[in-house]
Amino acid sequence: MDYDGFFSAELEALKDEGNYRWFAELERKRGAFPRAVNRHEGGTRDITVWCSNDYLGMGQHPDVLAAMHDALDATGAGAGGTRNISGTTHAHVALEAELADLHGKEAALLFTSGYVSNWAALGTLAARLPGCVVLSDAGNHASMIEGIRHSRAQKLIWKHNDLVDLEAKLAALPADCPKIVAFESVYSMEGDIAPIEAICDIADRFGAMTYLDEVHAVGLYGPRGGGIAEREGLMDRLTVIEGTLGKAFGVMGGYIAGSAALVDFVRSFASGFIFTTALPPAVAAGACAAVRHLKQSERERAQHQARVADVRARLDALGIPHLDNDSHIIPVMVGDPVKCRFISDRLMADHGIYLQPINYPTVPKGTERLRITPSPVHGPAEVDRLVDALGDLWAQCQLARRPVAAQ
Amino acid sequence: MDYDGFFSAELEALKDEGNYRWFAELERKRGAFPRAVNRHEGGTRDITVWCSNDYLGMGQHPDVLAAMHDALDATGAGAGGTRNISGTTHAHVALEAELADLHGKEAALLFTSGYVSNWAALGTLAARLPGCVVLSDAGNHASMIEGIRHSRAQKLIWKHNDLVDLEAKLAALPADCPKIVAFESVYSMEGDIAPIEAICDIADRFGAMTYLDEVHAVGLYGPRGGGIAEREGLMDRLTVIEGTLGKAFGVMGGYIAGSAALVDFVRSFASGFIFTTALPPAVAAGACAAVRHLKQSERERAQHQARVADVRARLDALGIPHLDNDSHIIPVMVGDPVKCRFISDRLMADHGIYLQPINYPTVPKGTERLRITPSPVHGPAEVDRLVDALGDLWAQCQLARRPVAAQ
Repeated sequence: MDYDGFFSAELEALKDEGNYRWFAELERKRGAFPRAVNRHEGGTRDITVWCSNDYLGMGQHPDVLAAMHDALDATGAGAGGTRNISGTTHAHVALEAELADLHGKEAALLFTSGYVSNWAALGTLAARLPGCVVLSDAGNHASMIEGIRHSRAQKLIWKHNDLVDLEAKLAALPADCPKIVAFESVYSMEGDIAPIEAICDIADRFGAMTYLDEVHAVGLYGPRGGGIAEREGLMDRLTVIEGTLGKAFGVMGGYIAGSAALVDFVRSFASGFIFTTALPPAVAAGACAAVRHLKQSERERAQHQARVADVRARLDALGIPHLDNDSHIIPVMVGDPVKCRFISDRLMADHGIYLQPINYPTVPKGTERLRITPSPVHGPAEVDRLVDALGDLWAQCQLARRPVAAQ
Repeated sequence: MDYDGFFSAELEALKDEGNYRWFAELERKRGAFPRAVNRHEGGTRDITVWCSNDYLGMGQHPDVLAAMHDALDATGAGAGGTRNISGTTHAHVALEAELADLHGKEAALLFTSGYVSNWAALGTLAARLPGCVVLSDAGNHASMIEGIRHSRAQKLIWKHNDLVDLEAKLAALPADCPKIVAFESVYSMEGDIAPIEAICDIADRFGAMTYLDEVHAVGLYGPRGGGIAEREGLMDRLTVIEGTLGKAFGVMGGYIAGSAALVDFVRSFASGFIFTTALPPAVAAGACAAVRHLKQSERERAQHQARVADVRARLDALGIPHLDNDSHIIPVMVGDPVKCRFISDRLMADHGIYLQPINYPTVPKGTERLRITPSPVHGPAEVDRLVDALGDLWAQCQLARRPVAAQ
């Protein structure tokens, strides 16, 4: 077997389809974000990042950075062990308490990433509840899909955000078997929002647990940044709320919040939690500062929503097609991996605008897109440059436009 | 279904067996490690940590902390995205180059943890090589086991470090099917070391790839800290070397190193790499500083080995039984979860010594142990206190001793 020959051939196939991924190498500039430097072909160029999930710019918030500097000075770099073997520090315990409070739950548990939190928590719950069936929204993130797959529990995929299909699938199951309804609040690549209350009503009727991924919502929605479920007064309806510390909270890590028994159960049985080095105390301290700040400050959320509305209106005025949704994510649809990459390359080279092409496997083939994530740190001049550049490229590539309403 | 009732009952069963885990809450003190503060029942107590995997104390090395402070000041807290979508920074690229160089490989790839690197890399290779069979050492870490399980490839478990069994299992397979021999260099809980050269010889004979986990060896062995394979001049014999940045390198994260094609293949297809937020640039910068330092400094490795030999000799003089091995890990065998927890509790309460009990599922039931990890930052007085305390507790618990040779 020629292993390297096999790997190379598979990579060539990706390149032929236009789905090979080149990573843009950046240097973020603290205090100047979303401006950054892109290292490219031996040189550098100044760019503006329009595709970050540091949605509120908390990655450069003074409170977050001060907490991280202080923790480094006080405790050093890493945790030095798993949570069980010398790796639990006060920073971890304090952050878990802050997160439980954020979601109105008895307890919370940290993981090294949001990916691991979904994979480990769903994988453990579904595997260990005898005869468990997982009802998974068709749009769920890879980390949830892999967790369910790992559990080897029976999985039923219900049509994305489709209450009728969910209800029909639940109704067909035995009344007494354990069930988990797994879904997201804000779907990352479409930006649409789940009907959480109706899903909880149905789940309750059939005795199912509810597992809600709020990674694209925590920090961003609700009066204290608890997510869509907080905004809609539904946090107590959910069995598990899962979130991330690496997007709106600007640092790294993932977590679940739920009842004390459930959280202790996952803590005690999840391989992906038990057998891994804990987050560095400075990471936990930085995330804790971000959570605390966004619990008491509405300013970032208000500015964020205003900037999103502004960008959307400007795109509409030019007829540049984007998915309608009620969230902060603006997917501009291209529908072809090669064109998507071409537009992205031209934006970077000619306009200093960084919008990563979103191709397969992140989105289905044929739905390739540019995903714009405006933030409070994008100024009006930067919005002008983005919209003008997209307008030029739309003309250059002869891409379809939507009818523009009379102004 | 009463979900919380189920979870509580399972937790009670763990408690009844003595396998429930209480986490010790620590505050490490930069510059004073292995001394730390333990928060306990509302108060605090000063302790010495004897069970950390920050094997060399690099978590408080000035170069590491300076690199992290500088990166925080320059770039901010988090990466803000996946590696593909705005999350690749210069710190990531520089660290991957440093790691490829460390292991004499063409390329390296970072993951958010060592757990994820094993799970994602083995899971992807075994799933995507058509008809792949994984030959897994019986002592492999949970992260490798879960990665292989996830791949759904055929798995053959060979007896721990048993060349005859490995050869027999390989010989029984079709000559042309892809095969991966997966093993570790230093096994974490036993401290024994694999016969790497002989394993590579056998793997070569049968056309198998070799995948070596060096997480308990990188930084600690070899003239530049490349691990056991470097020490033995075998790095070029291994297809993949996997390592961690969270143990001897003192920070957080995991990686693989291998051929450019293999690394690009895993980069392009591994769900656990693609769909997760990148490590914070400051974490990558800190780890990079640790790797660079340990490439050119033998001092920490020499002190580490001297301290290990010292502790081992002192335990032998008291007849306290520990597993013989050629590594830096000193497992003191207790063989009972309740006694193991009792000794650990008394060490902490009466002697200010923190040695976490290692119980199931980290080790098989009946092999419960205390796992001592001496480091260059443990001084002679601290060794005295550890050995004296263990001697007292051995008498108090009437535990068996080994014959003590005439001095």
